[in-house]
Amino acid sequence: MQLGMVGLGKMGGNMAERLRRGGHDVVGYDSFSEKRDVESLEALVEALEAPRVVWVMVPSGEPTRATVRELGELLSPGDVVIDGGNSKFTDDQEHATELGAKGLGYIDAGVSGGVWGLENGYALMVGGSKEDVAKAQPIFDALKPPAPQDEAGQPIEGAGFVHAGPCGAGHFAKMVHNGIEYAMMQAYGEGYELLAAVDLIEDVPGVVASWTQGTVIRSWLLDLLVRALQDDPDLEKISGYAEDSGEGRWTVEQAIEHAVPMPAISASLFARFASRQSDSPTMKAVAALRNQFGGHAVQAVEAAEPPEAENPA
Amino acid sequence: MQLGMVGLGKMGGNMAERLRRGGHDVVGYDSFSEKRDVESLEALVEALEAPRVVWVMVPSGEPTRATVRELGELLSPGDVVIDGGNSKFTDDQEHATELGAKGLGYIDAGVSGGVWGLENGYALMVGGSKEDVAKAQPIFDALKPPAPQDEAGQPIEGAGFVHAGPCGAGHFAKMVHNGIEYAMMQAYGEGYELLAAVDLIEDVPGVVASWTQGTVIRSWLLDLLVRALQDDPDLEKISGYAEDSGEGRWTVEQAIEHAVPMPAISASLFARFASRQSDSPTMKAVAALRNQFGGHAVQAVEAAEPPEAENPA
Amino acid sequence: MQLGMVGLGKMGGNMAERLRRGGHDVVGYDSFSEKRDVESLEALVEALEAPRVVWVMVPSGEPTRATVRELGELLSPGDVVIDGGNSKFTDDQEHATELGAKGLGYIDAGVSGGVWGLENGYALMVGGSKEDVAKAQPIFDALKPPAPQDEAGQPIEGAGFVHAGPCGAGHFAKMVHNGIEYAMMQAYGEGYELLAAVDLIEDVPGVVASWTQGTVIRSWLLDLLVRALQDDPDLEKISGYAEDSGEGRWTVEQAIEHAVPMPAISASLFARFASRQSDSPTMKAVAALRNQFGGHAVQAVEAAEPPEAENPA
Amino acid sequence: MQLGMVGLGKMGGNMAERLRRGGHDVVGYDSFSEKRDVESLEALVEALEAPRVVWVMVPSGEPTRATVRELGELLSPGDVVIDGGNSKFTDDQEHATELGAKGLGYIDAGVSGGVWGLENGYALMVGGSKEDVAKAQPIFDALKPPAPQDEAGQPIEGAGFVHAGPCGAGHFAKMVHNGIEYAMMQAYGEGYELLAAVDLIEDVPGVVASWTQGTVIRSWLLDLLVRALQDDPDLEKISGYAEDSGEGRWTVEQAIEHAVPMPAISASLFARFASRQSDSPTMKAVAALRNQFGGHAVQAVEAAEPPEAENPA
Repeated sequence: MQLGMVGLGKMGGNMAERLRRGGHDVVGYDSFSEKRDVESLEALVEALEAPRVVWVMVPSGEPTRATVRELGELLSPGDVVIDGGNSKFTDDQEHATELGAKGLGYIDAGVSGGVWGLENGYALMVGGSKEDVAKAQPIFDALKPPAPQDEAGQPIEGAGFVHAGPCGAGHFAKMVHNGIEYAMMQAYGEGYELLAAVDLIEDVPGVVASWTQGTVIRSWLLDLLVRALQDDPDLEKISGYAEDSGEGRWTVEQAIEHAVPMPAISASLFARFASRQSDSPTMKAVAALRNQFGGHAVQAVEAAEPPEAENPA
Repeated sequence: MQLGMVGLGKMGGNMAERLRRGGHDVVGYDSFSEKRDVESLEALVEALEAPRVVWVMVPSGEPTRATVRELGELLSPGDVVIDGGNSKFTDDQEHATELGAKGLGYIDAGVSGGVWGLENGYALMVGGSKEDVAKAQPIFDALKPPAPQDEAGQPIEGAGFVHAGPCGAGHFAKMVHNGIEYAMMQAYGEGYELLAAVDLIEDVPGVVASWTQGTVIRSWLLDLLVRALQDDPDLEKISGYAEDSGEGRWTVEQAIEHAVPMPAISASLFARFASRQSDSPTMKAVAALRNQFGGHAVQAVEAAEPPEAENPA
Repeated sequence: MQLGMVGLGKMGGNMAERLRRGGHDVVGYDSFSEKRDVESLEALVEALEAPRVVWVMVPSGEPTRATVRELGELLSPGDVVIDGGNSKFTDDQEHATELGAKGLGYIDAGVSGGVWGLENGYALMVGGSKEDVAKAQPIFDALKPPAPQDEAGQPIEGAGFVHAGPCGAGHFAKMVHNGIEYAMMQAYGEGYELLAAVDLIEDVPGVVASWTQGTVIRSWLLDLLVRALQDDPDLEKISGYAEDSGEGRWTVEQAIEHAVPMPAISASLFARFASRQSDSPTMKAVAALRNQFGGHAVQAVEAAEPPEAENPA
Repeated sequence: MQLGMVGLGKMGGNMAERLRRGGHDVVGYDSFSEKRDVESLEALVEALEAPRVVWVMVPSGEPTRATVRELGELLSPGDVVIDGGNSKFTDDQEHATELGAKGLGYIDAGVSGGVWGLENGYALMVGGSKEDVAKAQPIFDALKPPAPQDEAGQPIEGAGFVHAGPCGAGHFAKMVHNGIEYAMMQAYGEGYELLAAVDLIEDVPGVVASWTQGTVIRSWLLDLLVRALQDDPDLEKISGYAEDSGEGRWTVEQAIEHAVPMPAISASLFARFASRQSDSPTMKAVAALRNQFGGHAVQAVEAAEPPEAENPA
């Protein structure tokens, strides 16, 4: 079927490519990219036959909001907008209301797969009405990974795609996915650090690699860790500086909103915050307190060496 | 090759079976099982030709220690004992010293695979000398999972088996594996709970199932969670009571020993402790404090209803 | 000076009483209380001479917002509204803008002291303009605790009152105070639980009481814990069910907003959430996973006894 | 009464001084200090009249163990050794057994008070038999802080001193005290960091100072934080590098041993570990994983600038 794709960056560009390989007719637009097929959103809308489906794949927040707003003015009743970016689910609920008032459909699609998606497919978690989702189903089918097979060689349904609920449910599901991802990465990281901390383990990359078959903790992320350690067995070339995208934060915020205890995911989020601090104000206060009550030596800023250990108060 | 197997329970029995399917000659002994081939450890030792390899697969702690001690008295220089149970790595170091003094070899083998290992193979992390490991390698090769293939169809080496270091390194690696496992399970659990807490998500099992293909968080544990939710979509039949085995505790102890920050794995361990408490003394103290300073209503033991919410002090 | 007090509950009533004892003229109004001096907000405004200062001490959220809105319509330019409740600081910023547009001043006052404040004084953290704060300073001085003395017997300035910044700063400072409070209570709770868990400590209340003098951890909260244990040495009569007020949640939300690692305070918040769950969906998922991979016995809902411990996979 | 004091460092020297001020006869020995009264342990023992009480105040671990062992050989039945250092409670249990076999008494005394103890007194938590504790009671009474008064001016019993149980109980109680201390310091630190992170709070030291009267979180540690901020309002001169003494680690180890959930105290311990790392292996692994799956830019070691933020996978 025909699809308009707005945003042709690393994600949008690859998704357009995968859709074309799947036999779909994609008209692409991007403010900057030379790969664009049309020069403006107006031209994109004109190039598509109604009822149109337009996939928005631009940075979340204001860029997405502006694009959806503009599409709302250009499209016609019966058309559907899909936001495939990393929007917060509350944005979706506003978009659905705004577009719905004009007779336009709206779907939020959480997309996972990263740079591997072009070849392997993109896992999709979507939110919207049954009608709207049905209109876009051929697009979802082309983007999603091929169904895995069970032991009898039959395709397993439901892997790689879900219609999770009404508008917002897709990005909510993707948000939780990312929260889980944070804690899984932290778990492997903590385990790696302990292995690397002891002389007893002579082959840390070998241990991690051994875990990829037959163990309880085997996973795709673990396979990636094996790859990273093949390139750099002691992770000497990389700094322990980890960005966080919004989803981890939103996951913990939602946990708080719904009184869901979330110790492991929040610990993982906070570890990322800490990884980006050149010094910790919290620990400055702790060090200052130790100095106050115990006369413990403190480390002055820029000191080359840690203070001598002393007995505690 | 020939192997003595001590302990024919769920794990040992299946491992003996997999070894026999792999063409090995297994002589099995168990204090209780009717499946045993010999009636005593003495008979087991007599039934094996020197140099012997004896695999111990009994509960960790005193049962394993007693078995290793007894074997130490029965075996001859050049024989090798393998502890495949869940021993603490410090036990291994003692066993290696004890047996080494008698000219006996010792290997510790951390084994993962659970009830699935008979068919899929057992991941093995072993510690010991090169010579001893070489003697037992045919056994390890038969137990471990078949090598996975890379994209070119070539077997990937190093998956499912590692010689991690000297005695103790195998169980240490397995211990860390289990620590990671705790945090991964906690991560999925927390994500599941948040999905289930919101009305927005209409198909919680569907969302979890969708994650099994193409996502960053796909894993074997996730596949198992899908299975659990197929049987019991709201987990109504199961209580949130989670045992912990020793490995999670030892992992955090070792983290403390080596000053490794381990917030996510420790949070997961503590969540298990809390899951087994009918009431929390910590939270009793917190509730008592709130009552003291704010005159907040407290919930008496066995109260049917929570107290009315009040403004905080 | 003259003050209007809206809300004569546990907090507002005591504060009015303390102000009267301090020589101030308080006109009180409450929708329900028989203690009220006037029958309506209109009557309250009429009873005060301009420029008026009106203290709002009603539940945070909609009740406070409605009261502030109504006062905004009744008061005259130059009058000042003080919100002494537990409002979120973002509410204050909206109120300041709304009232400012009408020439009215606005102060947010975070108040600590609970049921002890009548006698001991109320600690105050206020936000607003210098001019507005100056107008209300006599009220603040009467409410706050007497200045403590240093070792030379001189009053220590700055204890019990701070003008923390512009509107919102007072409630923000109080919010952080409460976040810290959560972690302190959790710290004492965890320590208490460990003491109570070991036979070695024969006198748990005695240990806690001993900590109240000369130790690093002595505090007012600790004094309260001693009182609680005097009444109920094993905390047998109280359930470990702990409410949380909004401030703890907002503290962690703000930490997330500002990328501040907050592991201890968030852990304390989550412990409260968990304390109110009759069963944990997270731990149900963990138990279900253990069952799936290890064939571990699970505890069925309503089972009287925990399952037998088994070896881990 | 007469007391032998072994170890005349910051703690032991001040304690000897306080005891002398209290009218006791202290004979001091130290391997190094010029303040010593005798030149050897033998001379110390000779200088004391039987039944002797000898207080050991040397670094915990091997120095304490060696001193206790040597005293065991020099003292006579009926004499009592008090270990006032920071020993692990398990050491005490061994010492009590060793000395008991020779007819010697043993008391473990956890001491809090730091550099402030000389003037304010030392809080004492002791373990041992009733008989032994009774022998040393005059010493404890002189060291402990004066009893606080209740509102009626009567001394409050039990503050500053407790006989917590048999040998080991004193150091166990002190160990838990220190675990609580870690989480309290972390709580204040996290709150301080959030205050300092927002422009809204214009007077961070002022807010902290205001908390010292009338609030729920007032404490001695908070008073110390006020002092630290008076000297250095932005904590610019101090590095966020915080040592941990053994007690925090032992507290968490004991929590694990007894299946006590300890999320806040353990988080505080891990924050200290992290504060001492120049880079985090865990976060290196996390950064490496982000790079693998998302093509996210990573920060090379020694990079001056963080990578550009990108959309998550």
